[in-house]
Amino acid sequence: MKRFTTLLLLLLSVSACAQKPSQIYQDANRSIEERVADLLSKMTVEEKVMQMRIFHANKGVEIDEEGNLTMSDDVKERLKIGIAGIKNPGEHNTPVAAAKGNNALQKYIIEQNRFGIPALFVTESYNGVDAEGCTKFGRPITSAASFNPELTHRQWLVVGNEARLRGMHMCHSPEADVVRDPRFGRMSEAFGEDTYLVKENVVAAITGVQGNYDGLGNGTHIGAVAKHFAGYGQVLGGTNFAAIEISERTLIDEIFPPFEAAVKEARTLGIMASHGDLNGVASHANPWLLTDVLRDQWGFKGYTVSDANDIGRLFYFMGVAESADAAALLGLTAGMDVDLYADDAYALLPKLAREQPEIIELIDRSAGRVLRTKMILGLFENPYVDVRETERRVRMPTSLALAHEADEESIILLKNDNNTLPIDEASVETIALLGPALREKTRTHFQNIMPYKNYIVEQGFKLTDEQKSVPRVNTETAAGVDRLVELAREADVNILFLGGDEHTSKEAFFNGALGDRASIDPVGPQNELLRRVKALGKPTIVVFTHRRTLSITGFAEHADAILDGWDLSEFGDEAMAKMIFGEANPSGKSPVTIPRTIGQLPFHYSGKRINNKKGYLFMENGPLYPFGHGLSYTSFAYTNAKVSAPTLTVPGMITASVKVTNTGSMAGKEVVQLYLTDEIGSVTRPAKELKAFRKILLQPGESKTVSFKITPEMLAFTRLDMTKGLETGDYTVLLGTSSAKGETLKFRLIAD
Amino acid sequence: MKRFTTLLLLLLSVSACAQKPSQIYQDANRSIEERVADLLSKMTVEEKVMQMRIFHANKGVEIDEEGNLTMSDDVKERLKIGIAGIKNPGEHNTPVAAAKGNNALQKYIIEQNRFGIPALFVTESYNGVDAEGCTKFGRPITSAASFNPELTHRQWLVVGNEARLRGMHMCHSPEADVVRDPRFGRMSEAFGEDTYLVKENVVAAITGVQGNYDGLGNGTHIGAVAKHFAGYGQVLGGTNFAAIEISERTLIDEIFPPFEAAVKEARTLGIMASHGDLNGVASHANPWLLTDVLRDQWGFKGYTVSDANDIGRLFYFMGVAESADAAALLGLTAGMDVDLYADDAYALLPKLAREQPEIIELIDRSAGRVLRTKMILGLFENPYVDVRETERRVRMPTSLALAHEADEESIILLKNDNNTLPIDEASVETIALLGPALREKTRTHFQNIMPYKNYIVEQGFKLTDEQKSVPRVNTETAAGVDRLVELAREADVNILFLGGDEHTSKEAFFNGALGDRASIDPVGPQNELLRRVKALGKPTIVVFTHRRTLSITGFAEHADAILDGWDLSEFGDEAMAKMIFGEANPSGKSPVTIPRTIGQLPFHYSGKRINNKKGYLFMENGPLYPFGHGLSYTSFAYTNAKVSAPTLTVPGMITASVKVTNTGSMAGKEVVQLYLTDEIGSVTRPAKELKAFRKILLQPGESKTVSFKITPEMLAFTRLDMTKGLETGDYTVLLGTSSAKGETLKFRLIAD
Repeated sequence: MKRFTTLLLLLLSVSACAQKPSQIYQDANRSIEERVADLLSKMTVEEKVMQMRIFHANKGVEIDEEGNLTMSDDVKERLKIGIAGIKNPGEHNTPVAAAKGNNALQKYIIEQNRFGIPALFVTESYNGVDAEGCTKFGRPITSAASFNPELTHRQWLVVGNEARLRGMHMCHSPEADVVRDPRFGRMSEAFGEDTYLVKENVVAAITGVQGNYDGLGNGTHIGAVAKHFAGYGQVLGGTNFAAIEISERTLIDEIFPPFEAAVKEARTLGIMASHGDLNGVASHANPWLLTDVLRDQWGFKGYTVSDANDIGRLFYFMGVAESADAAALLGLTAGMDVDLYADDAYALLPKLAREQPEIIELIDRSAGRVLRTKMILGLFENPYVDVRETERRVRMPTSLALAHEADEESIILLKNDNNTLPIDEASVETIALLGPALREKTRTHFQNIMPYKNYIVEQGFKLTDEQKSVPRVNTETAAGVDRLVELAREADVNILFLGGDEHTSKEAFFNGALGDRASIDPVGPQNELLRRVKALGKPTIVVFTHRRTLSITGFAEHADAILDGWDLSEFGDEAMAKMIFGEANPSGKSPVTIPRTIGQLPFHYSGKRINNKKGYLFMENGPLYPFGHGLSYTSFAYTNAKVSAPTLTVPGMITASVKVTNTGSMAGKEVVQLYLTDEIGSVTRPAKELKAFRKILLQPGESKTVSFKITPEMLAFTRLDMTKGLETGDYTVLLGTSSAKGETLKFRLIAD
Repeated sequence: MKRFTTLLLLLLSVSACAQKPSQIYQDANRSIEERVADLLSKMTVEEKVMQMRIFHANKGVEIDEEGNLTMSDDVKERLKIGIAGIKNPGEHNTPVAAAKGNNALQKYIIEQNRFGIPALFVTESYNGVDAEGCTKFGRPITSAASFNPELTHRQWLVVGNEARLRGMHMCHSPEADVVRDPRFGRMSEAFGEDTYLVKENVVAAITGVQGNYDGLGNGTHIGAVAKHFAGYGQVLGGTNFAAIEISERTLIDEIFPPFEAAVKEARTLGIMASHGDLNGVASHANPWLLTDVLRDQWGFKGYTVSDANDIGRLFYFMGVAESADAAALLGLTAGMDVDLYADDAYALLPKLAREQPEIIELIDRSAGRVLRTKMILGLFENPYVDVRETERRVRMPTSLALAHEADEESIILLKNDNNTLPIDEASVETIALLGPALREKTRTHFQNIMPYKNYIVEQGFKLTDEQKSVPRVNTETAAGVDRLVELAREADVNILFLGGDEHTSKEAFFNGALGDRASIDPVGPQNELLRRVKALGKPTIVVFTHRRTLSITGFAEHADAILDGWDLSEFGDEAMAKMIFGEANPSGKSPVTIPRTIGQLPFHYSGKRINNKKGYLFMENGPLYPFGHGLSYTSFAYTNAKVSAPTLTVPGMITASVKVTNTGSMAGKEVVQLYLTDEIGSVTRPAKELKAFRKILLQPGESKTVSFKITPEMLAFTRLDMTKGLETGDYTVLLGTSSAKGETLKFRLIAD
């Protein structure tokens, strides 16, 4: 083995000098297929396998404040014959330092390997590029609440651009998971419970982050990796890494569409597999998912990447491989192209290829997909970022303004009894901003919007002990509640900041780093605080921020008004202040069903019609707030709802329309939602399904007629015989302000 | 139509006189197949369809105290040309009156139809025959807790015999459902969460209720109907009638086995389908379930019966049929033989047969299966019950003694700190029996066991308002708690009767008759009562009775000892009293995983190994009490655990054994449990699975070595390619006193 390495190094140093632009793979005028084939034909198995491995920069890539790069010996060793990519280089650096350091890192990699193959630098984006110094938008669930995918798209355009300006090339985002379990610590990273809403946002995000697909080589945007394929939002018990049990029909109709659209409509460059299994089959070793569905049915041409360490985990965690060797072979044969982080899986492929040369064909296939991606991104021609652009274009004023705009469109007015909101500013002098979800900048943000008021600002208590990750319910907490109630006596209006914080909902890892919850009640004495403040008899407003759905029955009972912001941008409380003082009008809609209690789970509005028509003992039936719910400071009247024809022939098309009028005195945006119910099917059908929506702005007194074409695609589902298509019969249309309220219409689909 | 009826009546009256024993179908010496074919060849479609319909006796069958029968005109009309069966005739009568009335009813039916075809009288059994005057055993979940299927078998022998003595012939029991959701109101009707435990009890129950299969014609037992096929224990949200989502692999490995054993091992005469759907396909219209699996794969020869109204419900509830006609055709073609109750489904078959004569073949098939069952039960030869036997043999002393015996084997000692139990009777004079789950006969039962004590007996408050089906948490309840605490001061020992009652957990119907819960906390201020009583510093024992799993974290925290009886027989508190005073020694084991909180659901010990290894934020991980847990007043040491060989060749066999010693000072029974873990599989595998258990009696100091053969069947599962079979590799054996505690061993399965 040592002799082999020495020989290889010799070959490498020779070949590094031998590089000529005359090589086919270097010729940008040739087709990518030709170039990849040429390159693969020249590469050793070891070199190809390195194009199937991504390391984390924390293995020893260091960039300092000036952008100077240092690498550990381990890293230098790893980069000798090329690498598929590196995760998060420069993540803790300023954009400029990161860009400089990443340029140096790329240069080293290109110079080290004999073909000059550049690396992919990979980041993530939950709320903007997951790195220092980039614009911080709201989380995906917040974007979903805007019911405005165009706005999502514009945010992800910024994400893609800011990432590329740091020297990144791929983004392990967005999540295309349909997440329906609020116990799951990662629910805020996805776009909510509804298949269609998720799909629309995923397409918006990918086409944003990738920019113009045909211009990906221009170096202004990056490639997306849609994740986690498939069913990750359905982990049993809402716990990360758990098994997933879901029928093929539900998968196809409810879980796959965002991924299918990511591939077919948005042309995502990458797909990441899901931790855990799917009906017993590990998703990282599932040829049906990774090859049959993804490639053969959908025509995916990009690369698949493992979630962190998950190929090796087939062996040491999942129990579906008897050895690391077996794990590597399982992943490879199933269609898993890239091994993220692990040194314990695809690192073994060179050895395995010597023992089983027939797998070289599969290695070529996977390595070729990565090389192809690098060519699409123009990295062979243009591997470096122009740092002057980084300086100018990260956190541009327009990007920051976009964060403000998105916040304003995402805040949901869940409740507003007696028009408590907006507050007449003339009537209040002293404003208390109180509660455990208060942020460092809350006071500043409120002062930015409404400067000349007295603010009483106090967090009172913390929800959790950061060190121990336990709820803080102790004497200190009780004293905090008492103190807040005393402060609330002094104010004209009390604004309570309640919900969760970064410790009550997060990604759950091993080793005691938990993030999922078995309760969806607000942590700590939040209900008690609210009840006692409300008892003072003053206007009591809840600003509700959180990263998972909470059963806020207590908030709903005691607050006069609730503004639900999920997890807004870095400027979130400015938008909240604008809402509170009527400088903006809420137009967000709930991207989830809000249950009364955790015992109602699983609970999404589009569940089967036969589910729980009766309800449970000892409680009111139905959700606390339905999916799609969100009030406005103005009022909207829905009139003149109609379908263009009562019958529709296959594959004919009709239109459903409704006139919406702003009957209040304030301009406002309304999300007009179209839900369809298939009254009779060959299989049991959902209660209703969102199939279209449109956000419109209406001035006081203004009317607009909103029309939706009802397309065959909207009506198609996986029928009894497992084919996807239409069935004749009666349908009900709801044109609504939420999934529970609106005008209903009927039509009948008949055979042509 | 009127003319037709008149003609038919004429024919009937003629044919009634024309009956001769010389007919083939009347000849008991001929094969049943010949007899059925002969009979079918003579019957009109209308007559055959009547052999596919069961009415409820509440349509107008009245039996008075003397056993005199009266029938409404409607009933008389219905019975003119025969009937498959009648549900619950005489259910509110004494056994003797029921037997007399049912004989009269049978006579009327036989005399009315021209072939003299008798009817099946059908009952149910959750805890003994569901009718007046029969022996009341514990519910199935209670039987499961005994971990003694032989005891279950003896109870169901009594059930079958007592039912037949009332004139019944079939029993819509037992439930073969694996129920894993404690929100479901019917969980006590089934045998718990574990596939193997359910299977063993289902076989015990069916072979009990049916007695000797070859002697079914002797008139001492009845036919069983295993239900609900399939997946009823997995209704979404734990709500009756809801959709069911479960992968084919899980179905085959975890849900089907009790049904498969009911057919193949226990030879059940009937199978009832499940309300709701299975992965979108209505179970009453599922040819895969009802024909492919049940008949073709398992060889089922009996009849399938709908759950109440469920064929008609395909149309008006499930939304999978466009009309009642379509519903009837869907059920018929799928393989649904008998329509229970509905006048809106199979009532339409005669008309449909005129329009579509090709369905007559299916009608013949289904009617033939019912006729065949009647012949197996000997009803053509021996349709009546001997009322003198009814008088003598219902509620025999041996049957009542069996109820006592079963109670004593079913009570689970969940907790017994500092050997609080058994109570030294010499040390107590005044005993308080307090709490909302106290029953009418509790005082009597305790006095039967321990007569010379002072008893303070007070329920204090009721859990629910029976009228309104709401929890009673009001000033009256609070006063009740105060009163109980005051009474508790007077006692030497406080025995609190906590848990649920018949209103807090029950079958959920429509029309406001709810039964499922979205909480599994004890209803009302039970935890508060316990906490306050415990604070008095006296021995505090909880007698826990309930019909669903409750999260009794509060009980576990405050009680010194907890005796868990689920739902015992009519003599249940006598067994509890015996346990409390040490006249019996608990030996029950929990047939379910007891969670800390509802937020841990779904939570069964045999879930996938990859599930939730980490736990949730802010709470202890794992169950409150694990599946199979149950203490004793004595102690058992497990030693000398071994496997007969460390490797096992397919299809070889090895034995796992352990020496169990009673190291305490009281005789006791222990359930030695064998769990297997498949360390590596082609699919993700369960954490562990119960594959065998044995209940043994040990005198103080006595040892027994318990051996289990590890059979290929125990190791088989549905592999990656969907075939069922074995895989080589490492296995872990747990020989335990519960699913969480015992001796572990390893073996390796290698290819032969």
